[in-house]
Parts: sequence; structure tokens; C-alpha cells
Amino acid sequence: MKNNQFKGIIAYPITPFDENEKVDIKLYKQLLERLIVSGSHAVAPLGSTGVMPYLNDEEKEAITEATVEQTKGRVPILVGVSNLTTEKTIYHAKAAEKAGADAVMIIPMSYWKLSDDEIVKHYDTVAKQISIPIMAYNNPATAGIDMSPALLKRLLEIPNVTMIKESTGDVQRMHYLKKELGEDVAFYNGSNPLALSAFAAGAAGWCTAAPNLIPELNIALYNAIQNNDLKEAQKVFYKQINLLKFIVEKGLPRAIKSGLNSMGIDGGKLRKPLLPLTEKESSELSVILKLINDLN
Amino acid sequence: MKNNQFKGIIAYPITPFDENEKVDIKLYKQLLERLIVSGSHAVAPLGSTGVMPYLNDEEKEAITEATVEQTKGRVPILVGVSNLTTEKTIYHAKAAEKAGADAVMIIPMSYWKLSDDEIVKHYDTVAKQISIPIMAYNNPATAGIDMSPALLKRLLEIPNVTMIKESTGDVQRMHYLKKELGEDVAFYNGSNPLALSAFAAGAAGWCTAAPNLIPELNIALYNAIQNNDLKEAQKVFYKQINLLKFIVEKGLPRAIKSGLNSMGIDGGKLRKPLLPLTEKESSELSVILKLINDLN
Amino acid sequence: MKNNQFKGIIAYPITPFDENEKVDIKLYKQLLERLIVSGSHAVAPLGSTGVMPYLNDEEKEAITEATVEQTKGRVPILVGVSNLTTEKTIYHAKAAEKAGADAVMIIPMSYWKLSDDEIVKHYDTVAKQISIPIMAYNNPATAGIDMSPALLKRLLEIPNVTMIKESTGDVQRMHYLKKELGEDVAFYNGSNPLALSAFAAGAAGWCTAAPNLIPELNIALYNAIQNNDLKEAQKVFYKQINLLKFIVEKGLPRAIKSGLNSMGIDGGKLRKPLLPLTEKESSELSVILKLINDLN
Amino acid sequence: MKNNQFKGIIAYPITPFDENEKVDIKLYKQLLERLIVSGSHAVAPLGSTGVMPYLNDEEKEAITEATVEQTKGRVPILVGVSNLTTEKTIYHAKAAEKAGADAVMIIPMSYWKLSDDEIVKHYDTVAKQISIPIMAYNNPATAGIDMSPALLKRLLEIPNVTMIKESTGDVQRMHYLKKELGEDVAFYNGSNPLALSAFAAGAAGWCTAAPNLIPELNIALYNAIQNNDLKEAQKVFYKQINLLKFIVEKGLPRAIKSGLNSMGIDGGKLRKPLLPLTEKESSELSVILKLINDLN
Repeated sequence: MKNNQFKGIIAYPITPFDENEKVDIKLYKQLLERLIVSGSHAVAPLGSTGVMPYLNDEEKEAITEATVEQTKGRVPILVGVSNLTTEKTIYHAKAAEKAGADAVMIIPMSYWKLSDDEIVKHYDTVAKQISIPIMAYNNPATAGIDMSPALLKRLLEIPNVTMIKESTGDVQRMHYLKKELGEDVAFYNGSNPLALSAFAAGAAGWCTAAPNLIPELNIALYNAIQNNDLKEAQKVFYKQINLLKFIVEKGLPRAIKSGLNSMGIDGGKLRKPLLPLTEKESSELSVILKLINDLN
Repeated sequence: MKNNQFKGIIAYPITPFDENEKVDIKLYKQLLERLIVSGSHAVAPLGSTGVMPYLNDEEKEAITEATVEQTKGRVPILVGVSNLTTEKTIYHAKAAEKAGADAVMIIPMSYWKLSDDEIVKHYDTVAKQISIPIMAYNNPATAGIDMSPALLKRLLEIPNVTMIKESTGDVQRMHYLKKELGEDVAFYNGSNPLALSAFAAGAAGWCTAAPNLIPELNIALYNAIQNNDLKEAQKVFYKQINLLKFIVEKGLPRAIKSGLNSMGIDGGKLRKPLLPLTEKESSELSVILKLINDLN
Repeated sequence: MKNNQFKGIIAYPITPFDENEKVDIKLYKQLLERLIVSGSHAVAPLGSTGVMPYLNDEEKEAITEATVEQTKGRVPILVGVSNLTTEKTIYHAKAAEKAGADAVMIIPMSYWKLSDDEIVKHYDTVAKQISIPIMAYNNPATAGIDMSPALLKRLLEIPNVTMIKESTGDVQRMHYLKKELGEDVAFYNGSNPLALSAFAAGAAGWCTAAPNLIPELNIALYNAIQNNDLKEAQKVFYKQINLLKFIVEKGLPRAIKSGLNSMGIDGGKLRKPLLPLTEKESSELSVILKLINDLN
Repeated sequence: MKNNQFKGIIAYPITPFDENEKVDIKLYKQLLERLIVSGSHAVAPLGSTGVMPYLNDEEKEAITEATVEQTKGRVPILVGVSNLTTEKTIYHAKAAEKAGADAVMIIPMSYWKLSDDEIVKHYDTVAKQISIPIMAYNNPATAGIDMSPALLKRLLEIPNVTMIKESTGDVQRMHYLKKELGEDVAFYNGSNPLALSAFAAGAAGWCTAAPNLIPELNIALYNAIQNNDLKEAQKVFYKQINLLKFIVEKGLPRAIKSGLNSMGIDGGKLRKPLLPLTEKESSELSVILKLINDLN
């Protein structure tokens, strides 16, 4: 495998805001610490969960630096650096490397649908400017573009593109990746409700915001898979499925913040236009979390 | 579980035709026998694979009778009896029961999209006329209608609707069925490329035409799951995935016939408008089959 | 233009059933007569509206014969003869020609998705057996297959395939047909809510069940287009749009029957699994019809 | 009608870049001037065509100011001010008003899918900060969110939301807008290939980049509609349809730049990751333009 630093549960912190919609770095560090001490195998700031696209340059850099400071090398760090333009993507990728990130995650954000050639050129241009590994990330629901398995294969010819994160929600994409890309490439699951299927299909890791709320169950699923114990994996998966579906349906930043609040933890504010879950939705989430805790 | 007669590999025979596009019952029995002796846990005549909708009443009855005769109770028999009208569905369901079928499979065929109430009434009316179990079958790709998990739940309130076959290709549907319908209902996977995911999710069986070509691998997958050996299941699944994808993409009746021919076995003719695979497609299939055999 | 017999409002009668779900030929003739005397330019029995796929061979032939008898040459007749198998399609096409139909309409019904070659062969084989014109009909929503503009172009190379009916609901398909197929081919709109767009795009006719309920408005739209009076066409179109949307959303046979009842006309029974509209839906339709009549 | 300043052909300029991917204001003014003198009824800088999302704040403000300077009140100006966050949308809306824009266009850009309540709050918060009219813009293909007709109706309750731009490519949306929203609201078509259908359905205007290449034909279509001459409208529409389809399929900024070049006009550079059309695509466009000019 070209890269084996990232595996298991890769936890995505939220980016909390204060009353004035400014990033709250102190609270961020506290929330990040929870992810590390509860056993996540890696952390991934500035993902979709961390509302990266809603932040300005200074805010992004502050989050990356805070992550490096707080993590102190205990787990590897994967930083989201995607941007609409190639120039800005390079800017953030270099900043992340300089700050101490172990790898960067890049999704081909698109307003105008990009051609395959444009996407390859984009990744290649950025890759040449940094020396840490790149995780190419496919998520048509948020980025507006769906990279075909064939295109992902082309991206993997770029030396430091070594990891693929698949979030289409189609397990057959993972079968293809596993079958066609060979043993030296790691693929990661980014679709929470597919966690069991993805590990069964051979995913190296699970990129997820769920450890903000239920780290033990997330890690138990990975451990069962590592122990080749499918029955146990199935059991712990069905314990957490309702939460996984809920947080995806409601939007990860909103749902994680609400879940933290329901557990008595400050999740900070959101930045508009994002609004908190409605009371009805928050109650529904509390019930789901309570049922999970009662089961354990 | 309300019904446990059907489990494991439920094999779907094709319906072969002669030079004049008449059903070839003698050849049918030979092809059916292959499925039984190679270890399938049940057989399912008059499915999509068996081109049921393209047959007239007499032909359907002849196939059912031939199946009962040939099977001689060695494995349970699941007969497809779906029809556009409720009256004809009752007719075929009763005929199948009388002939000795162990259960019937019913998909809500639709030309005009049916409302949920129409579908429930349809199943309920048919169910009252027979005493054997019914497998409700969801496959929007062939039937033109997609039954929601909520509707499937309503159908299961009908006493002899005891099994669900899911062919949408969305593993999350299976998660819902498992989580919501409880331990007493069995769900079956009808999407070949999802075989591993579906078993990992807890499917009781796999409805598949693949045993016409690669019975050992199909059964090996089920056995690995039974042995709680995920690593082995993954290994045998990836051996067969290219074949599973191919037969679905090309259409099961066409692909199975071509695969049988490529193995030196007479698969009969197709009924028009269905035409054999092109030479190029047949060669592609031969290569896939050869690679599988070389691996074993 | 290769065929100019069919143009304007091509009206689709429903097939009424009696208490025992038998076809009610006497009532059918009365309903057909209403379409003719109210000014429709052609009639089309055994369409989707006429629940053709739910009828057996004898019933189909009885409907065709009743249509010829009742019409007495006053308007041209277009008979639906589609069937899953090529052999049965030929059977019904020949029967329709013999009975006196002016043209037949054929949709490539599919259970197994057909390849382009299979579809071309299907039409070609049928076309060779009859001498009246064929209208090729594209409607993925009911038939499960979507014929591309390129495929429709191939079909038009068959000498007696002279008309195209487009029901995808995508007006751009009609632009393509008009632009690419040239002046000698007529295309017809089968999507009621697109009636204005289709005529604006150059459709030769409108295949519709609406004249069962609002013939004057349907004909007024066509006349406005013939008079090159877009403002008037727009005005009469917006008067009828809510009805056009309603009958499509609820299913034409159900909605037309309910609308006839609401106007005090016997629409007969439906054949199961089709059920009548709910009371709430019927009331909604009555309100729509009343508003239309108040406007006129 | 709440607002009647914008009607007819609303022309979208591209934003040209220099060799270093900096905005070329001088060239922008020349390209804008072409749109004005060739008869466009309004201009709309910072749209999708003007790659607004790829520009930084200073660049956006420079484009708006250049537009006001160059236009000198000859036609009304509609400025795109959409942004992921509400705060930045307000910032740009106020800047546009201050610079002299006649109205602003806002699409609910989304990374996280927004709820209807979030969207209404977003528009309402922005609307309160400015006094010029707002055009609400629906385009799921670029923005990742599809505003339902019911939601658009809610937005129109905000006093200065007075215009709707529909770019789903579904003419039935326009029928709904016309039928439900009443005579006092104007809707605009943003889907080039739907130009004829949209005008036939009653659109007040056509938001389009096509006047960069074929202004005479765009204006001729609008004039024919104004003259209630459908036959003429159909004729001029079919003359331009291939170009309209091409520029949409290839992406407006790329296609307009290539078309300008093919006509001997400098269209500037693109900003990466956007790349110029391939040679093959450019040749195809040249042929389309030549055919159009030969026809005229």
C-alpha cells in the first residue's frame, strides 16, 4: 500500500462559532481533544463537517494551526484544502503542509462542471507544489461533480495522490476501486450509512463526524472488522445506524452541534445561512442518542 | 422467523426456447437439474431470468409442472406468478400452489403506476386465495414501480407475505428492512453485485441466476458468511464480481445463455425481441469466465 | 411530410369495464362517439388511456372492431398494438390493419431493457408484415425504456414508420426531432402539460385523453396555433393546465373515469389492481373542472 | 407587475483574464460594450457566465464598477452577488447597490443543502439591507439546490424580491410560476435551449450569454414573440438552437471565449481549473457559427 498512515476511524471535528459568528478557536480545541482521547485513529479538520467552504483564508489557517498545536503528534492530521480555483488550492495546500499536516484532502469543487482533463490538471498542478500525500475525495452531493472510477484511476497516477475517499453512497464504486486499483491503493469510506458495507468491501478507513457523538461504537465496528468477526460488526453497526442516517440527513454540522448540546457539551454556534436543527429535530436526535446509550 | 424454508442460494433457471421460439421443456429440465445437483438451496422458475412476462399461460404452467417433476422435493421451489391484473395473478398463484410450489414470488407489475393502496389490495386479494407463503419482490428497474420500505412493512402485515426480495441495488434499503422489520421476517437480496454487502447486512438468501454459470463461488460466499469468516467472503466475492456485474449489465437471460454456450452447454434460443449477445460481448464473457476458472 | 392524415387533436378513449370487470363494448362506443362529435381530429383506441396492456387478445380485437364500426370513417383511427414479444406485436398489428385501422402505434414495451439493435429489429419485423403506417412511441415512464433521438432517427428509415410520438416530457427532444428529422416527418406530443411548448416547437398533433373531459379547450389550443396567434394559445393553455397536470399525476384511466362521473356521465368500472380515485382526489378534480367551466 | 425594468434579452458578459490570470478590466469593458450596442435590453455582470464564484471581493467590485462606468445608464444593470454565507452576500449586495446597480441576482449557493427556512431567512436578511429589487435565481445544476415552486412563492412575499429566474430546464416550472404567482411577478428564463418554450409560456425575459455571439438572432426571437408571430419565432429559434445547446453543454465561459476567438475577437484567458475548449470542440463551434451566418 502506497500509504498506510491513515486507517480506521478518521474523525472530523466541527468548526464552532461564537455569538458574533467568529470562529471560536478555544472551543474548537476542546472539541478536537475529545476526538483524540476517545480513540480516533486520525483527525480531519476543514472537512465538510468543519464547514471549510464557509471560512475565509485566515480562519482556515487558524484552524489548521490549532489542530497541529492540540494534536501534538498523537494522531495523524488530514487537512481539507479544496478551493474553486487551482491557485487558491495550491495556496491552502502549501499552508497546510507548512503548518504540519500529514496529508491534505482535495475535492474538485465545481461551479462549472469540470472536464476530466481539467480535474487531472488541477490535481497534478497542486500535487507538484507539495510533498505530503493527497487524498482525492469524491462527493457529488456537496461538490456538484462525480468523478468516475476511471478518472480516479487516472488521478492515482500522480505520485502523491495515494488515497481515495468515496462518498457517493454506492458500494459498487468501492468494489471497483478494490478490484481495479490493486492492493497498493487505500480507499476510504465517506458515507456514514455505508460503514458496514464499506468495511466488508475492504475500506482502509472510515471518514466520519460520528465520533463527536458515539466514538465507542465507531471504533467497535472497526475492531470487529479487524478481528474478522462479521457477526459482531453487524451487531454494533445496527446499534448505530439510526444515528448515522440522522446526521447525514440533517447535515453534519447542524446535527453534530445539536447532538453535543443534547449530551451537555457546548457545540458553539453555526454561521448563517446554516441554522440550528428545529426543536422537533433536536428531540428526535436526543431520543436516538438515548436509545443507543441504553443499549450499551 | 416467519419462514425459514428459503435461505442461502436461490437459483433462477432460464427458460430455453427451440428454433421456432417454443419453450423447450426437455432442455429446461436439464438446465434445472444442473442447478440442483451443483448445490443450490432452492430453485425459482418463472423469474425475470426465466422471462416469465414473455410466456403465455400454458407455457407458464408447463414450466411450473416440469420444475416440480424434476426437483422431486430435493429443494424448495419458489414460483414467479406476477401479472398486470389482479385476476390473472390469482390464476397463476393458485395454479402454482396446486402444482406443488412451496412459495410464490409476486412483484407489483405496473403499466400505470400503482398507489400504495392499490398494491396492498393487490397482494391481499391474491394472498387470501392461496395458503403457501408469498415473497414480495421490489425491483423498480424491471417492474417500473419502487415499493418504499414503509409499504413493504404494510405488506408484511398480510399473514402469508413472509419474505421480501430487494433488488433496488441500494444496501440502505436492506439496513432498514433488518432494523425495522425485526427478526421474524426474512429479506433476500436480488441484486447480484450487492451479494457481499447484502449478506453482511444480514440477508437470509441471495436470489440469483449466477449458479447457472458459477455455482461453487456463489455457494462458497454463502458458506463463508455462515462461518463468520468475512475475509474469506471478501476473497470469494471479488473472484466473482466481474461476472456478477456482466450478467446484470447485459440482461440475465441473454448473458446466462451466452455463458452456458461458452462452457459448451446448450442454453437454447431466446424469444424475440430479445437477441443473443453480440460476438464481442460473448467473447468478453468467455474471458471473464476463463479468468474465474483460472483463479480457482 | 411522409404522412399527413394524423394532425391536431388525437383523442384517446378509455376502456370501460362492467361490474364483473368485463369490457363494456356498448359503453365504449358511447364514450368514443362523444370524442368524435366534439371535434377530435382522430381517435386512438388501445392506448395507455385504454389500458391496452391489461386486456387479453379477444378484448383488444373487440375494441378495435367496435372503433371501426362506430367511427364510420368520420376520423382516422390509430390503434395501439404494442406487446412484449415481437410475435404478438405482429399478431395485433395485422389484426388492426385487417379490421380497418388507418395506422398503428407501437411502443417498445420492455421487461428486459432492449438494446437499440433489438428495438430496430422489432419494429422492422413488424413493419414488414403490414402496409399501414406506424407511429413509434417513446414513453419511458410507462414502457421502461427511453429511445434516444438517434434511435428514433434509425427507426424512421423503416419505410412505414412515419410518425413519432414523444412523451418524455422534455421539450428538447422535440426540438431535436424537428431540427434533425426534417420536414417530411411528423412528431406528436404525448405529454399533456407540454401541449403549448410542443405546438410552439412544431408538433403536428397532440395525443391526449383530455378531450374526454374538455374537448373545446383542447381544440381551441390547436386552432390558435394554426392561426399563428400565440397570445390566444397561451390564454387557452393556462385555462386548461391544471386539468392536464391532474389527469397525468393521477393516471389517465382513473382520472378520466372520475371526471366523466363528475360531469354526470357513466365512465364504467376499472380493472384491478387499478382502483378509482379517492373521494378527496375526485373532489379536487370536480373543483378543477368547475373552475374551467366557470372561466369559459 | 411589481418590476418592469428588466425584460427582453438580458445579456451576460464573460469575465476575461490576462496571461497571469488577473481580471482584464479593459477587455471586459470592450466585451460589455459589444453587448450594449448590439441591442441587448439589459446586462448582467457577475453571473455564472462571468465566473463570479471564482473571483475575490476586490475583483467583483471592480467588475461592478466597470459595468456602471461603461453602461452609462443606457440599459439597466443586474449584478450577481451570491455567496455561501449570508454575511458576505449582504456585503456584496450593498456594494452593488452603492456602485449603481439597478437590481441584484441571488442564487442560494449551497455546500450543505439548505432547508426552506434557511433559504427564506437568507433572502430576507439580505433584502432588508438593500433597497433595490432582487431576482431570485433557481439553478440546481450550478448551485446544488433546487428551490421548489412553493418555496419561490414564499420568497416573493419579501417586498423587494420581485423577479424569478428559472434555469432548471423544466418548462412546467414556468407554467406553475405563471399560473400561481399572478400577473404582478415576472419570471425569466435562464435555460438557453428553452428560450422558445419559455417565451411561449410567458417569460418576461431571457437571461443569456448568447448575445456575446449571436445578438441579432436572440433579439429577433424576442421581437417575434412581442409581435405575436409564433411562426417567425419558431423559425429564428431553430436557426440558433444548435448554438444554444452547444454553449450550455460545454460551459458558458469556455464556449463564449472560444466563439469570440472564432469570430476574430479577443475573449481573454480563463482562470484555472477552467481550460479552453479542445481544438475539436472549437472547430465544432466554428462550424455551428458559420452555418448560422450562412443562413442569415
